[in-house]
Amino acid sequence: MSHKTCVIIGAGEGLGHALSRRFAEENFNLALISRSKEGSRAALEEAQKSFKDGKHLHFFGDALQPESITEAAQKVIETYENIEVLIYNVRGGYELKEPLDMTFSDLESIYKIEVVGAFAAVKVLLPGMIEKKQGKIIFSSATAALRGSGTNPIYAIGKFGLRALSQNLAKAYSKKGVHISHVRLDCALDVPLIREWYGKNFKEEETANVHDVAQNYWWIYLQPKSAWSNEVELRPFTEDWTF
Amino acid sequence: MSHKTCVIIGAGEGLGHALSRRFAEENFNLALISRSKEGSRAALEEAQKSFKDGKHLHFFGDALQPESITEAAQKVIETYENIEVLIYNVRGGYELKEPLDMTFSDLESIYKIEVVGAFAAVKVLLPGMIEKKQGKIIFSSATAALRGSGTNPIYAIGKFGLRALSQNLAKAYSKKGVHISHVRLDCALDVPLIREWYGKNFKEEETANVHDVAQNYWWIYLQPKSAWSNEVELRPFTEDWTF
Amino acid sequence: MSHKTCVIIGAGEGLGHALSRRFAEENFNLALISRSKEGSRAALEEAQKSFKDGKHLHFFGDALQPESITEAAQKVIETYENIEVLIYNVRGGYELKEPLDMTFSDLESIYKIEVVGAFAAVKVLLPGMIEKKQGKIIFSSATAALRGSGTNPIYAIGKFGLRALSQNLAKAYSKKGVHISHVRLDCALDVPLIREWYGKNFKEEETANVHDVAQNYWWIYLQPKSAWSNEVELRPFTEDWTF
Amino acid sequence: MSHKTCVIIGAGEGLGHALSRRFAEENFNLALISRSKEGSRAALEEAQKSFKDGKHLHFFGDALQPESITEAAQKVIETYENIEVLIYNVRGGYELKEPLDMTFSDLESIYKIEVVGAFAAVKVLLPGMIEKKQGKIIFSSATAALRGSGTNPIYAIGKFGLRALSQNLAKAYSKKGVHISHVRLDCALDVPLIREWYGKNFKEEETANVHDVAQNYWWIYLQPKSAWSNEVELRPFTEDWTF
Repeated sequence: MSHKTCVIIGAGEGLGHALSRRFAEENFNLALISRSKEGSRAALEEAQKSFKDGKHLHFFGDALQPESITEAAQKVIETYENIEVLIYNVRGGYELKEPLDMTFSDLESIYKIEVVGAFAAVKVLLPGMIEKKQGKIIFSSATAALRGSGTNPIYAIGKFGLRALSQNLAKAYSKKGVHISHVRLDCALDVPLIREWYGKNFKEEETANVHDVAQNYWWIYLQPKSAWSNEVELRPFTEDWTF
Repeated sequence: MSHKTCVIIGAGEGLGHALSRRFAEENFNLALISRSKEGSRAALEEAQKSFKDGKHLHFFGDALQPESITEAAQKVIETYENIEVLIYNVRGGYELKEPLDMTFSDLESIYKIEVVGAFAAVKVLLPGMIEKKQGKIIFSSATAALRGSGTNPIYAIGKFGLRALSQNLAKAYSKKGVHISHVRLDCALDVPLIREWYGKNFKEEETANVHDVAQNYWWIYLQPKSAWSNEVELRPFTEDWTF
Repeated sequence: MSHKTCVIIGAGEGLGHALSRRFAEENFNLALISRSKEGSRAALEEAQKSFKDGKHLHFFGDALQPESITEAAQKVIETYENIEVLIYNVRGGYELKEPLDMTFSDLESIYKIEVVGAFAAVKVLLPGMIEKKQGKIIFSSATAALRGSGTNPIYAIGKFGLRALSQNLAKAYSKKGVHISHVRLDCALDVPLIREWYGKNFKEEETANVHDVAQNYWWIYLQPKSAWSNEVELRPFTEDWTF
Repeated sequence: MSHKTCVIIGAGEGLGHALSRRFAEENFNLALISRSKEGSRAALEEAQKSFKDGKHLHFFGDALQPESITEAAQKVIETYENIEVLIYNVRGGYELKEPLDMTFSDLESIYKIEVVGAFAAVKVLLPGMIEKKQGKIIFSSATAALRGSGTNPIYAIGKFGLRALSQNLAKAYSKKGVHISHVRLDCALDVPLIREWYGKNFKEEETANVHDVAQNYWWIYLQPKSAWSNEVELRPFTEDWTF
């Protein structure tokens, strides 16, 4: 029998590569979808290192063109059996501007990235899970999904939409045996982008370690069907928790 | 000095006409934006009846084409002074389908209707309010803004997005003196559509009366700046309240 | 026919006296319950000034001895007809300490003040409202009802409990025609205690004016039964809004 | 070096015995606190079976007499080293009555059971965790902590208070290295009481299996300090999810 497959959309050098490694360590095949093979190189290498005999492949997909996510997901279906896990880990740029400075293009992009792209993947991959009454779909999200912002409004609009999608799916398909979970990261992650952003002010202990987060995704995967979490929050012990 | 103006986008025969009447009763000019003058006929007549000397006009605008909302709002600015209130009262069809049956077109439409259209209006009308450090923007929303659904998923995606937009705006512009409020109607409204839908099972006391709702919008308008509500919930006394 | 009566428990010189004035202005009799007549002097004077022919009386009641609230409420029933409004406006001291420094006595006191005292009043006054299918019960609360605190933990425990009580009552008795509402003040109030506390750092525009808040209570009173708010939030336009 | 110790307060034949087994399987000593050794017999036997060389003991403690919880916790401290986990798993009777039928005694009891008893245990056991910058405190809770009820109001008042306590503690002591988590069970558990209650209508798949829940507690224990959940929700795949 073939190995189980985990599909990660948005498999870059941040949380993506940690997720790739964590599932590969459990002998999952990794199907990695992102805008460029180069961007997923770390994720792919981690997978190959952790599960040498696995079938780990990169597929082109760009959430800004949701139809490319559809196509990538379809290729994944043609390439793999036993697709057990879909992780949607895409995120838009974290662009600070006040709401009135948002452009219509900003609104369109964030919606494609957070909602339409996610739905494109779900639309292709969920029916097979329902058929087998088994499967896990995990959305990487943030506190921005629960609270708007005067300085980072675009991100909130995207994440609110993603959370709505996640709840919709959970309410419709949990009973069919598919576990859908929205993971709210209430913190900054320890990823290259954040280290660069904070520069000298970066403090490792004030961020979530991506491998620790990936471990939590693994536990969500393991949750037995009598005790599922549909919404998960994660924050480091240092975080000032306001929501 | 010219009369104050209230702009209502989505001024149909449901809540829209009641809002039109309520603000006209207080001697507001009414600028009504909707897809057809015919659809806004009741709202226009109510305005004319309640404030005879008011300047009550209809402007074409269809949230499915957000640029038409932009244009309508611009015409409103050219036509009126003292624009004090913007009410975004548009809503999409309440189409029951399971999430996997949503189309990409559904996703695009609901986002335009609930988020992009609203933002289009805000983008034109808010700067003038900020300049005068005065103004009220009210979004008609629903419990679907807080909770997903397995049977009515499209609506939730739209309303979550609208709530994000509302919170973003409130957090950015309250300090500038503009009051932004998201009104969650946790119930069915007593409007022709709902009466038709429920047929014999319609029970008036299980719905919110649109004039009672409009009165609440009026109180939001009146709220002094030291005691604003940015999120308001309304439900009839009969409602089983689960969120 | 006799005038309507508003019962205010916790009628001091802060929000209490403003509520007293606001309802007296509408020709309500005021029944004021507090620990001392001296403490309610301002509230009583406001009532007498605003409604000269009203029957305005003080009754002794101390939430730390809930049975005294019961007795006071019983005297109110014997003294007045048409008791239409009950406002529970008591609050404990805002004592900053870390959770481990809370004493068992702190826990007992805050529960009496926020929950048992409120229930004592409700137990006496609600049945008459149910009988007449009419009445309003308003609880003065705070954001502490929704969010714990590492520095002011006692207050949160009390307010969470008060909110639970309020929701319980709303769910049980709305259908009987009694409107129960929990008012979350997401801010400091402009009251003597706060002015003293902040000293030179006090900024009027960063607080809610008690008369503006009282006006909002009045609107809650006016809400028609097809469009009630069971939870109301209020904050000044200057407030940084995090929950 | 001595084994780690897990303290369970409310170690009966429901979730308690499953938690006892799960931590014993990981070679934890179990300190079980409950009203009677007989009531904790199953929990004690599970511990002995799963970790034969462990030091598993029962201590008398009744949350209705919080001082007995204090005493039990003090005995636990004198008896064990390495107290790493405290699970507060007590709950009151699930008594259905409308709010007006609550007695003052009901209010007093539920507060002792849910809040004062929990705090009593925390007050004794948390300082040692802070000193070692290590430890986990888990509160068994329910959706009643987030939503009032017209038919089961006592329970909600207790659980709201417990959640406040949990958030207070998390906000004050996470930075000290102690992980505090509130587990919301959004469902019925498969325990003898529930089976008896539902009788013929009991459906196993509509409840959470206690061993599955205990496994989730174990994962909370394992969560690394860069990625903690302070609030966890659990429900079976069959649950109609309304909050």
